[in-house]
Amino acid sequence: MSSNPLTDKSQELEKFKKIKDKSLTLDMTRGKPSKAQLDLANPMLSLPGPKNFQDQGVDCRNYGGLDGLESAKKLFAPLCDAKPEQMLIGGNASLSLMHDSIWRAMSFGVVGSRKPWGQESRVAFLCPVPGYDRHFSILEHFGIEMIPVPLFDDGPDMAMVEAKVQEDEAIKGIFCVPKYSNPTGSVYSDSVIERLASMKTKAVDFRIYWDNAYSVHSFAEAPRPIASLLDACKKAGHEDRALVFASSSKITFAGAGISFLAASAANLSDFKKHLQIQTIGPDKLNILRHVQFFKTWDQVLSHMNRHAEILAPKFKAVDAIFSRELTGYAEWSRPKGGYFVSLNTKPGLAKRVVSLAAELGVKLTAAGATFPYKKDPHDQNIRIAPSLPPLSEVEEAMEALCVCIKLATLEQTP
Amino acid sequence: MSSNPLTDKSQELEKFKKIKDKSLTLDMTRGKPSKAQLDLANPMLSLPGPKNFQDQGVDCRNYGGLDGLESAKKLFAPLCDAKPEQMLIGGNASLSLMHDSIWRAMSFGVVGSRKPWGQESRVAFLCPVPGYDRHFSILEHFGIEMIPVPLFDDGPDMAMVEAKVQEDEAIKGIFCVPKYSNPTGSVYSDSVIERLASMKTKAVDFRIYWDNAYSVHSFAEAPRPIASLLDACKKAGHEDRALVFASSSKITFAGAGISFLAASAANLSDFKKHLQIQTIGPDKLNILRHVQFFKTWDQVLSHMNRHAEILAPKFKAVDAIFSRELTGYAEWSRPKGGYFVSLNTKPGLAKRVVSLAAELGVKLTAAGATFPYKKDPHDQNIRIAPSLPPLSEVEEAMEALCVCIKLATLEQTP
Repeated sequence: MSSNPLTDKSQELEKFKKIKDKSLTLDMTRGKPSKAQLDLANPMLSLPGPKNFQDQGVDCRNYGGLDGLESAKKLFAPLCDAKPEQMLIGGNASLSLMHDSIWRAMSFGVVGSRKPWGQESRVAFLCPVPGYDRHFSILEHFGIEMIPVPLFDDGPDMAMVEAKVQEDEAIKGIFCVPKYSNPTGSVYSDSVIERLASMKTKAVDFRIYWDNAYSVHSFAEAPRPIASLLDACKKAGHEDRALVFASSSKITFAGAGISFLAASAANLSDFKKHLQIQTIGPDKLNILRHVQFFKTWDQVLSHMNRHAEILAPKFKAVDAIFSRELTGYAEWSRPKGGYFVSLNTKPGLAKRVVSLAAELGVKLTAAGATFPYKKDPHDQNIRIAPSLPPLSEVEEAMEALCVCIKLATLEQTP
Repeated sequence: MSSNPLTDKSQELEKFKKIKDKSLTLDMTRGKPSKAQLDLANPMLSLPGPKNFQDQGVDCRNYGGLDGLESAKKLFAPLCDAKPEQMLIGGNASLSLMHDSIWRAMSFGVVGSRKPWGQESRVAFLCPVPGYDRHFSILEHFGIEMIPVPLFDDGPDMAMVEAKVQEDEAIKGIFCVPKYSNPTGSVYSDSVIERLASMKTKAVDFRIYWDNAYSVHSFAEAPRPIASLLDACKKAGHEDRALVFASSSKITFAGAGISFLAASAANLSDFKKHLQIQTIGPDKLNILRHVQFFKTWDQVLSHMNRHAEILAPKFKAVDAIFSRELTGYAEWSRPKGGYFVSLNTKPGLAKRVVSLAAELGVKLTAAGATFPYKKDPHDQNIRIAPSLPPLSEVEEAMEALCVCIKLATLEQTP
């Protein structure tokens, strides 16, 4: 901040008015891929074609195959740091796999449960914050208490996690986005993963919901492997603790991809016992489409390089504008992958900033969305989603946002 | 039966041995479409193609649209005898829509419930029998008591249905396949539909699960409209009673189609309140594929005519062989649409027949499968699924089945 807040404030107000006169309509709320990214997978729109509807002798046009195609398990196993036999292929949304997995735990329990979670007097989850609002919505929907835990660059505050799961039997799980976390871009270190896998939990049926949504979504560094949670859990003697989820939504088409669950044999068997009541199986033609389009894991990775080329400049622009304008006003993440930038204003300003931005026609994710119950205790976190709009709009929106942040900060200055 | 059971028995034993020597492997268990039927939709395998991924301005490659595409609601509303605004488009399985709807009722209740069904001391459903095993599996999975009700040619025994729902508050619903019912081929009459819609129920939150799986699946008669359950319920002042399900699995590709729920505004709103936690939306590209392939309702109907041409000879062959061989030994349905023939042996023989057929390499649906808890009280019902195998195999399997039925009957004859 400069030395004269009053002058600064009138300057920012002037800028604010000028931007307002432009009548912008910019949407920075959603972690959606852009048109250019979607175009990369357009050849899939003609697949499998009229003749190639078989996969290893399976007619993908007909019923059958509760857990998908073997060829897809093999191809996408690296996405979950898993072995093909640990994979189950689902429908178009890993969110549904996670949702249904929690719902089943509530209605029936998981492998090792003494009773359905819903019959316990209290069920709680640890929630690294800031985090993904849709995870929190699932937990809230099923009446599961959410206990926030700070999320650092290398994963959650493990000392706090370990202390809590050791003392509180009601804590049945933790929701993690281990790589390029939504929204902070955190990447869990091998040491954090090892501690999560090996820690003692008071609940005998503790589960790690590992939403590996951005497993191959690097844009500012080479592909960066993290430790396999499944392997770590197995090594620690907690093989059933890990439930690994992923999808191709941000690899091929958003909402028209395929989803994955990787888990222990016991977990898979339990999951399928229930799944076979719910469905005859996932859409094998869409699974086949993915197998035919990529063929090899290397091609998945080179496809993701093309995504990176589109995403990197947008994230670079956000950081450049923030660095120029916001030093002293805010702190923000500099993710090397994923879909979001997490920004912290001075305490107490996030709602005001989001509201000012709305006045300028810049729609931001609601303040608080990144916390359980939509309650950011310090009202300072704002999630920025630069993927969808073209670069010029990202820049325009970020310039406007900077003015709003400065203005809100100066409003607060006594 | 002829006048000399002993002679007959040795003749049938002779035939049985001859067939056994052929080492058949015929599968008559599954209501799957045949290759020839699937081929009819092969042009869809190249859709939507690289450029036509928009529907009324919506980019179907990206997130959004909780309940599908408006164009698909309009196109497929007649499948549910519904209006477009009553439609919700789901994923690849209407079974999942039904399963999740029951699960939600158990966990949260439905519109008008005093509490979640799962918190009632007892929850029961009426089950017209013989019926569809996957409906029964869902009910059993959630611990819902199943009360069988006889199914006639024009629908369930309505006097019994009315009496039971009026006296038993625990009866929360009924599962119906109103048209070409699985397995009897029954078609509910308008009068039955009107009675279902208007009957008084002791449960305030009674629901009709209307699995209209074979709505346009006539093969031995012209398209035959039935009364709209939604309209009948609305007229009777029970607008929220009807939950209508359908899918395109047996229209386009089995397990790679799209599913439909049609219901009142209050039911849809309640359903979506939960659905938005479970998913961002269904696979819009697959919905678009369907819209592009059919374009109009007339084309859906003419497509189904081509299915009928493939299915009709198989069902005709079954009836011809049964008529020639089984008069006096068994009774069977003569469906005008759908996927199954229901056959009743003399009481106590179904399991024996299925086991004899297995000895001949002819796999039949397990005896009892068409009843709740897999218990056919008279052990006499066998479900025959002639759709999948080629005509020659259907004939071969039915000839073998006839020998098994005669043999089992004659074994039983004193």
